[in-house]
Amino acid sequence: MELLIQRAKQLVTVAVHGKLVKVGPEMREIGLIEEGSVYVKDGIIQWVGREVDRTIESTRDTHVFDASGKVVMPGFVDPHTHLLFDGSREIEFAMRSEGKTYEEIAHEGGGILNTVKDVRKATKRELKRLADNRMTKMMEHGTTTVEIKSGYGLDMENEIKMLHAIDELAKEHYMTVVPTFLGAHALPSEYKGNKGGYIHLLLRELIPYVGKKHLAAFCDVFCEKGYFDLPEAEEILNEAKKFEMRPKIHAEELSQLGGAELAAKVGATSADHLEYVADEGIKALNNAEVVAVLLPGVSFFLGQRYAPARKLVEGGVAVALGTDFNPGSCMSFSMPLMMTIACTQMKMTPEEVISAATINAAAALGLSHETGSIEIGKRADLIVLDIPNYQYLPYHFGVNHVCSVIKNGTILEF
Amino acid sequence: MELLIQRAKQLVTVAVHGKLVKVGPEMREIGLIEEGSVYVKDGIIQWVGREVDRTIESTRDTHVFDASGKVVMPGFVDPHTHLLFDGSREIEFAMRSEGKTYEEIAHEGGGILNTVKDVRKATKRELKRLADNRMTKMMEHGTTTVEIKSGYGLDMENEIKMLHAIDELAKEHYMTVVPTFLGAHALPSEYKGNKGGYIHLLLRELIPYVGKKHLAAFCDVFCEKGYFDLPEAEEILNEAKKFEMRPKIHAEELSQLGGAELAAKVGATSADHLEYVADEGIKALNNAEVVAVLLPGVSFFLGQRYAPARKLVEGGVAVALGTDFNPGSCMSFSMPLMMTIACTQMKMTPEEVISAATINAAAALGLSHETGSIEIGKRADLIVLDIPNYQYLPYHFGVNHVCSVIKNGTILEF
Repeated sequence: MELLIQRAKQLVTVAVHGKLVKVGPEMREIGLIEEGSVYVKDGIIQWVGREVDRTIESTRDTHVFDASGKVVMPGFVDPHTHLLFDGSREIEFAMRSEGKTYEEIAHEGGGILNTVKDVRKATKRELKRLADNRMTKMMEHGTTTVEIKSGYGLDMENEIKMLHAIDELAKEHYMTVVPTFLGAHALPSEYKGNKGGYIHLLLRELIPYVGKKHLAAFCDVFCEKGYFDLPEAEEILNEAKKFEMRPKIHAEELSQLGGAELAAKVGATSADHLEYVADEGIKALNNAEVVAVLLPGVSFFLGQRYAPARKLVEGGVAVALGTDFNPGSCMSFSMPLMMTIACTQMKMTPEEVISAATINAAAALGLSHETGSIEIGKRADLIVLDIPNYQYLPYHFGVNHVCSVIKNGTILEF
Repeated sequence: MELLIQRAKQLVTVAVHGKLVKVGPEMREIGLIEEGSVYVKDGIIQWVGREVDRTIESTRDTHVFDASGKVVMPGFVDPHTHLLFDGSREIEFAMRSEGKTYEEIAHEGGGILNTVKDVRKATKRELKRLADNRMTKMMEHGTTTVEIKSGYGLDMENEIKMLHAIDELAKEHYMTVVPTFLGAHALPSEYKGNKGGYIHLLLRELIPYVGKKHLAAFCDVFCEKGYFDLPEAEEILNEAKKFEMRPKIHAEELSQLGGAELAAKVGATSADHLEYVADEGIKALNNAEVVAVLLPGVSFFLGQRYAPARKLVEGGVAVALGTDFNPGSCMSFSMPLMMTIACTQMKMTPEEVISAATINAAAALGLSHETGSIEIGKRADLIVLDIPNYQYLPYHFGVNHVCSVIKNGTILEF
């Protein structure tokens, strides 16, 4: 299995001296090669450079892909999604268009618990079918690695059902899947007034079970007023660490609570959202080398505040981008659109959003040694874009520019 | 040529008692029919209603289109574009992502005059080829009628070249095209310091020529500080009216200047942009029944203020939506994405944005007697969407839900 992608008008490697995560000005270095080629064997990148400098010869068995006139770059890594769900919440979208806030809608019986009802009713098979279709469409739009969270089950049976579904999708779908346990997503209605009881269930039953069965690489907590506070989040994440799940936190999304500092304290791989992060939080993330996963689609969709991306980049924090694809706060799986929102609303540059959607997003999943850039030894997860230059990707928005996707060295047809 | 579109899960007619434009609460009436069918003959809608009520029988010659499970609605009308252009301005996009404003970039030699240089160099044939590709992609995304402005020529030769190209596209492309003369888009560099000279050229040469040759249905003026002021805009539009071009105005885009009042005074069909419109302007538009064409993609793309859509709707103004597709201030042709931006950023409801993108957008072009709703006697300009309900259209954003387009009764394949 050999593949030669040849003569891309622009080949964007996103590589910076073999670094596995980019901070500050490095985020603007994207490894641009004009008339670039990539040689792949057994799904692994063997060589990358200018076509005129190519030394590795193709053989009779090499599949040659002509990328002339096109832009080639690493497939997107979406480091934060809730894409395993049933039902939809377009009614809440309409309510917000009439002026209601996300919090008000949650108080009126909407919000996360709305999706929990639908997910509990659904079979694993049905959840998988829905998610599989979504993942295929995401690949069509350039995403080759995705994180998927549980958190719409909120009891033993349904959280495990979700994690088994994610595990099977990981085995059956072309996309690389990273599973995250998010039992601490919300308090299920049967525990209303008894948060201690639910946290006990998480600490004593769910986390040990998920850990022993290796059903999740990460454990995440929605650390927010009305959800889980700092001490609760800390206890949950520390317990998860004992079972080899690495911590992630939904931090500072709707208010400034100190979730960024907690992420630093527990050694989280990423702190996600950060719309309300303060200067102290930024310092803490920088010191502890926590990746900041920004989700501008949520701010856009809910009509709320954006994370201070410039302050984070300039504060030396590695910034990644994700979609947060979910039916309540961001019904979109388009990484390119998130990049446009990041440029126009958070004033990130085209180069920064490319780094944020590839290598830094891979770092937010602990996978930047194997994907997120076009470098020798990494998986050949590449996308081919029908645009004249890489800046077009965020610039010409609202249309899918991806014309081919190469996953583990295989060209996918849709 | 007979076509029967059968059993749409939701058929959205957008019809309100035969009205040709919708104001206030009418914008939320969208004529929803469950299990709806449409019968078309010779490109004209002959019957519309519930499948169980259908009386018109199909014949052996009738093409039957099964729309079960799908949403069917009128094709979008995009009432404001500058889609005939050469070159692109992704560099300016990157400059804005680093904090520069649209005005600052124009002062540094970017902006409209940048595209004027490229358009003057291009042949009519090349401009047409580029525009033709864009129009086909727009149709794939659901647009069946489009307005196209000149305004990147800014001299006799090149404005006429643009209008001839638009005229030929109107004849050759499936899309319905409405041509607008926008000679007053900016002051060309050769007239720097001599605005009077350029206005003389517009009044004495260009407008009479364009008028006599019937090259434009509308005349538009960019009424803004640094472009054309109120008295200049008024003189230009009044002159154009003598030659049977109906007035449109780029009004209150970057500052509150009184363009809305001027639109009312000259009897404009539409006032476009309106980001800075004041209460008096809204009253004037209401009194004079001027359609307000809002272009939220520009506010999104430039990171600037949005038009007060709620005040306009509640002030009894007919609100329409357009893309303003152009390389400088909105590099997108996606009407569905504009609808999402309108819901999330301007707090319009899903029903209002559907009315705004169809019947009211047609009214902004004086075409709502023939398109913009699914009613007997109108052209069969319809789109079929692979979504479970119409609310999904703005809700599930960043992906193209259009699966089939029917233009003048013909099913188009892409």
